[in-house]
Amino acid sequence: MHPLENNSGFFHRHRVRYYETDSMGVVHHSNFLRIFEEARVEWLRARNLLEAHAPHADLTLAVVETSCRHLRPAYLEDDLKIHLQVRLEGATKIYFRYQMYSPRFEKPIATGTTVHVPLNGELKVTRLPEPLRRELEKETWTETWP
Amino acid sequence: MHPLENNSGFFHRHRVRYYETDSMGVVHHSNFLRIFEEARVEWLRARNLLEAHAPHADLTLAVVETSCRHLRPAYLEDDLKIHLQVRLEGATKIYFRYQMYSPRFEKPIATGTTVHVPLNGELKVTRLPEPLRRELEKETWTETWP
Amino acid sequence: MHPLENNSGFFHRHRVRYYETDSMGVVHHSNFLRIFEEARVEWLRARNLLEAHAPHADLTLAVVETSCRHLRPAYLEDDLKIHLQVRLEGATKIYFRYQMYSPRFEKPIATGTTVHVPLNGELKVTRLPEPLRRELEKETWTETWP
Amino acid sequence: MHPLENNSGFFHRHRVRYYETDSMGVVHHSNFLRIFEEARVEWLRARNLLEAHAPHADLTLAVVETSCRHLRPAYLEDDLKIHLQVRLEGATKIYFRYQMYSPRFEKPIATGTTVHVPLNGELKVTRLPEPLRRELEKETWTETWP
Repeated sequence: MHPLENNSGFFHRHRVRYYETDSMGVVHHSNFLRIFEEARVEWLRARNLLEAHAPHADLTLAVVETSCRHLRPAYLEDDLKIHLQVRLEGATKIYFRYQMYSPRFEKPIATGTTVHVPLNGELKVTRLPEPLRRELEKETWTETWP
Repeated sequence: MHPLENNSGFFHRHRVRYYETDSMGVVHHSNFLRIFEEARVEWLRARNLLEAHAPHADLTLAVVETSCRHLRPAYLEDDLKIHLQVRLEGATKIYFRYQMYSPRFEKPIATGTTVHVPLNGELKVTRLPEPLRRELEKETWTETWP
Repeated sequence: MHPLENNSGFFHRHRVRYYETDSMGVVHHSNFLRIFEEARVEWLRARNLLEAHAPHADLTLAVVETSCRHLRPAYLEDDLKIHLQVRLEGATKIYFRYQMYSPRFEKPIATGTTVHVPLNGELKVTRLPEPLRRELEKETWTETWP
Repeated sequence: MHPLENNSGFFHRHRVRYYETDSMGVVHHSNFLRIFEEARVEWLRARNLLEAHAPHADLTLAVVETSCRHLRPAYLEDDLKIHLQVRLEGATKIYFRYQMYSPRFEKPIATGTTVHVPLNGELKVTRLPEPLRRELEKETWTETWP
């Protein structure tokens, strides 16, 4: 089964836009972090957790660490699929990881991680709201995915 | 005299960055508005007016209108020069206009205008601070430039 | 009827992303041109015309002019709707115009136009391919829309 | 000595632009990769190596891996300073690492790494040109920097 047909776990779709490409004719590497962000926000939306986040609440899941491995290029108009897993560590550290697929390749075109801490509007570390914490504790984090 | 050597009036320099180019190998058209914005902010800085603007003061010169004509392409690494003129109309409408040059062409590669009104943090129209108004009234707006 | 419920004519939907907002908490004005571009490409896709365009063919509908009026702000997570009309003038000049709506306002939040000419890979003006020309001649351009 | 006054080793300056900030009022995390890219290109320029790179030559130092740690925020108008070190590993793997400082803090606001391989226009791994290899072998990579 091609990973694009595997609908288990959470995933997000993203169509590559012209303004995301660069002189090499592929998606600029900085835009992978933006596409990961989209996937993260869509995960929050799917769990009804957007209300716990700015601008609705005094909380932002600030990015404190990112990493990305670029394995194969992403081209204009590619209909990308981003699988996502999330894990809470301790009281306030949230790990997201991502696998990105395109219709052109069987294997992932990129993998990445982002690490987050909850900050309030003064950019100080704050407590995770209970609904968000409960959802995070329910999440599965597996070695074989998607 | 090549326009790049004409240093009369206010101008700003901008080096074209790789992440500003697109699949055609030229600067993506949306980035011209970003480069105009840089020129505007540098004009404010040169007039010591940044202190009158957010985040230092409760004022943003919000963009209400933009236009841009793309006459010649801008390429990677081009050392662009943006000439700028500014004019106050009535109590709260500010017109900026721009001519952009590159080392590759005698003639401008782009011209543009942006129109602004002063907004406060609640996005309501507010008064122009006196120092900003005085500077705007001193500016010259000429038909032949640079 | 709220414009978001009016599905006549061509339109495109765009969800505002976090990376599209700026310090004012609204969509940065340069990103409106990117969203217009998305709508344009989706119009081409809906007419099966993407094959006539780069990278599939030696043709790019290069942007030679843009304008945008910002009437109301676009906020994070807004589910925007962009109506689009297109018109061919002479042999090679294509006008697109746009009306953008958000769920927050009855009236448009932005209107804009972009003007395009067909260029080949050497950035020279080229002929419009017949399928594209035929589609453009079928389009309607009305004063009252959406 | 504040790191902003330490001019040993290679560094690049970057003024934070309004369009680089997001709703939190700080530089969006994806833009750190763009600022690292600027520093990389300026390093190439300072070594007279831009001619060995696209679009002048059939070579791109493609990004295969990135990582970034965000330690302190970068604000609008901050005059950032990015220190850079580079190291060749084997025949074709190039490591860049970065330390970013702002006038607001003694300690770095971000650190990062990017890993690159030389690709030709068909996105295949290619040989490093001799002048680039020679420069890379001359570089120092130290534990205490800047």
